[in-house]
Amino acid sequence: MSVVEQSLTKGPERPPESAVATSAPAVAQLPTPAFGEGKRADRWLLSRLLASLGSPPLELAIRNGARVAVGTPVARVTFDSRATMLWVLADVPLRFGDAYSDGTVTVEGDLVSLLETVYRAGRRGGGERDPLTQRVSRALYRPHLNTLSGSRDNIHHHYDIGNEFYELWLGSTMAYTCAYYPTPAATLDEAQVAKMDHVCRKLRLKPGESVVEAGCGWGMLAMHMARRYGVRVRAFNISHEQIVWARERARGEGLDGQVEYVEDDYRNISGRYDAFVSVGMLEHVGVKNYTALGAVVQRCLGGRGRGFIHSIGRNRPATLQPWIEKRIFPGGYPPALSEMARIFEPWDLSILDVENLRLHYAQTLRHWLALFEGANERVRSMFDEKFVRMWRLYLAGSVAAFATGSLQLFQVLFAPGESNDVPWTRAHLYER
Amino acid sequence: MSVVEQSLTKGPERPPESAVATSAPAVAQLPTPAFGEGKRADRWLLSRLLASLGSPPLELAIRNGARVAVGTPVARVTFDSRATMLWVLADVPLRFGDAYSDGTVTVEGDLVSLLETVYRAGRRGGGERDPLTQRVSRALYRPHLNTLSGSRDNIHHHYDIGNEFYELWLGSTMAYTCAYYPTPAATLDEAQVAKMDHVCRKLRLKPGESVVEAGCGWGMLAMHMARRYGVRVRAFNISHEQIVWARERARGEGLDGQVEYVEDDYRNISGRYDAFVSVGMLEHVGVKNYTALGAVVQRCLGGRGRGFIHSIGRNRPATLQPWIEKRIFPGGYPPALSEMARIFEPWDLSILDVENLRLHYAQTLRHWLALFEGANERVRSMFDEKFVRMWRLYLAGSVAAFATGSLQLFQVLFAPGESNDVPWTRAHLYER
Repeated sequence: MSVVEQSLTKGPERPPESAVATSAPAVAQLPTPAFGEGKRADRWLLSRLLASLGSPPLELAIRNGARVAVGTPVARVTFDSRATMLWVLADVPLRFGDAYSDGTVTVEGDLVSLLETVYRAGRRGGGERDPLTQRVSRALYRPHLNTLSGSRDNIHHHYDIGNEFYELWLGSTMAYTCAYYPTPAATLDEAQVAKMDHVCRKLRLKPGESVVEAGCGWGMLAMHMARRYGVRVRAFNISHEQIVWARERARGEGLDGQVEYVEDDYRNISGRYDAFVSVGMLEHVGVKNYTALGAVVQRCLGGRGRGFIHSIGRNRPATLQPWIEKRIFPGGYPPALSEMARIFEPWDLSILDVENLRLHYAQTLRHWLALFEGANERVRSMFDEKFVRMWRLYLAGSVAAFATGSLQLFQVLFAPGESNDVPWTRAHLYER
Repeated sequence: MSVVEQSLTKGPERPPESAVATSAPAVAQLPTPAFGEGKRADRWLLSRLLASLGSPPLELAIRNGARVAVGTPVARVTFDSRATMLWVLADVPLRFGDAYSDGTVTVEGDLVSLLETVYRAGRRGGGERDPLTQRVSRALYRPHLNTLSGSRDNIHHHYDIGNEFYELWLGSTMAYTCAYYPTPAATLDEAQVAKMDHVCRKLRLKPGESVVEAGCGWGMLAMHMARRYGVRVRAFNISHEQIVWARERARGEGLDGQVEYVEDDYRNISGRYDAFVSVGMLEHVGVKNYTALGAVVQRCLGGRGRGFIHSIGRNRPATLQPWIEKRIFPGGYPPALSEMARIFEPWDLSILDVENLRLHYAQTLRHWLALFEGANERVRSMFDEKFVRMWRLYLAGSVAAFATGSLQLFQVLFAPGESNDVPWTRAHLYER
């Protein structure tokens, strides 16, 4: 899971405002103001918006209308009409993304740079979400959008999109999680393989051991573990498409004797194993279920063995960016470490090692974004232009979120509290 | 700070019951029971005690009286009288340690093994603190101890004891914190130097940088940083004796131009630095002050630089073992990681790396205990037999707590959330 940063909710951290619009407004039902008056009002609103973002170096414009800028703009954001601007302003975190997806908001300049600038300014700026702008905007704008259904955008839902689409830009490993780049120059595939090895080394897998994986995606980590480390793996996933893909691949590689893919929820995992591993599932679990997840771990390990969880996280609790939560990852939630503790503490699981790899996720996402852009035409023909713009924003926003420290990537190694089968040092991870 | 494990307070984890007795009871004011009757009652009480400890393989005995055992006992614990047993039973976590210190409870067999056995059994056993035993014990025992003052034992307080005493058993580095053993065979001094280098490497110190240290002990880490890494250090400590020792040593080594020792509280630290470091102070800070500590860090780093905190910790929140809290470390509290988060989260400090070194602390404590036992005579002449027994119990109990996973040792590397001056990988820590 990759996620664009949250925004305007809490704390001193300021909004990215990077996202959102449910499909653009149709026609603005506004009284036509006298020319000078309207333009002055628009400029005022655009200025308020920039200020509420922490005054990033951007230009904001209405097509053929008002424009404002701060410093030397890294990019220009153009609203196609005053109506669009007003509509977006009333709920920037949700509607910017929707308007961008629909093409009623366009960006000239580099999208990632734009979003990074907004994230950075958001941190520096002290302001809260700007209620005045929203109030004025709502008063001026009378939407006639009742025929547009909010559910329409959910049809292209994340894991229902089909394997073919993901094969276009995930690289040959089909790993849809943060890679590990031994050096920043590593390729995506190299880094994904290195990530798998990093995980296996952290778990100190030995031939003949048994591993259970919760949330296995397309199952490539499970195959890697079986092939390179000689372990038996039971891998769980509730995505039917992914499981089918994984089973076929494992059969093709002759690994189906060593790896079993189970189409079931992590809560239904049974049996004892030497290691528990979960890479990129926790973001979908929800904090309320963390103690239950810990119970599964405890049951699987039975007071011995090792556990490993890899997840997007936060420096502190915060909700997911609204557009991402609504359009990309319904129910998604990247936890702070204090929240992840709810997995471990009730069961006396001992945290042995935490590594934050957020810059590696920014790099992974840059690679994905480049592959995605290269497959533009193909994606457009599979879906539509709106889908392409939506996913571009999601991937670019995720680069920005990890690059600016709005999102973290935590790898957590742990073991039952009573077990002394723990690594003496971490030097073995770095031996050639 | 080294701490014997908590015990009977909360959670499924069971008591170490390793500790305690405020000075032994004088004379038991008990009705003399008919021989058989009394012995049966004593056996019953001793059995209840063993059961409440989770039935560790021990023998419990009253001198010239009842005795009970479980399995093949690793050690025998003898109460010098029925009165002592009853007095201890009424509050085992506090009074076992006091009775052991006074010599009214004695141990045959290895003290560390005894305590490890109790810790392990406590984890396995499901029982709570045994209120029945306490009630019976209180009903039978009428103490006449009013003349004994509880404050008497506090005179030999931890950091008032004098540098000479610590010089007997801390090794040449005078580091009173967990060492880092590249291999288990390393000597104490090697491991303490390796720890200092491990810390400096994690902080990626560069010549010319400035470092602030909160809680510097005898100041040897600050000197090491200045000498080996070419940085300037301001080191804070509220212990006058330690500061005097550190200043003298730094002068002797010609480092007083690079290292400044400040006799002041961490809350009064001012100035900007490239790095913030604190090794073994957090245990004395108290969770309520964590946000204030975070504010100090934030102020010192000002949105850039690196931070490092090394502290004893827990798998989950729990109070300190009562005897240790009362006799050894008043106000001491080893936090769970979820509690440490209160330092970081309010200030958007980003946790980059957590390493749990609990087995290294067990090893460090074994070395300290061996040196302490070797200096027995000297310690006895400086203090008294009671002091020797008290410190033996404290050090042995700490070995047991870390060896059995009742205590953890967390090294946490962090940085301001907006800083990208973070290590790409951790490989540099392990390069020769």
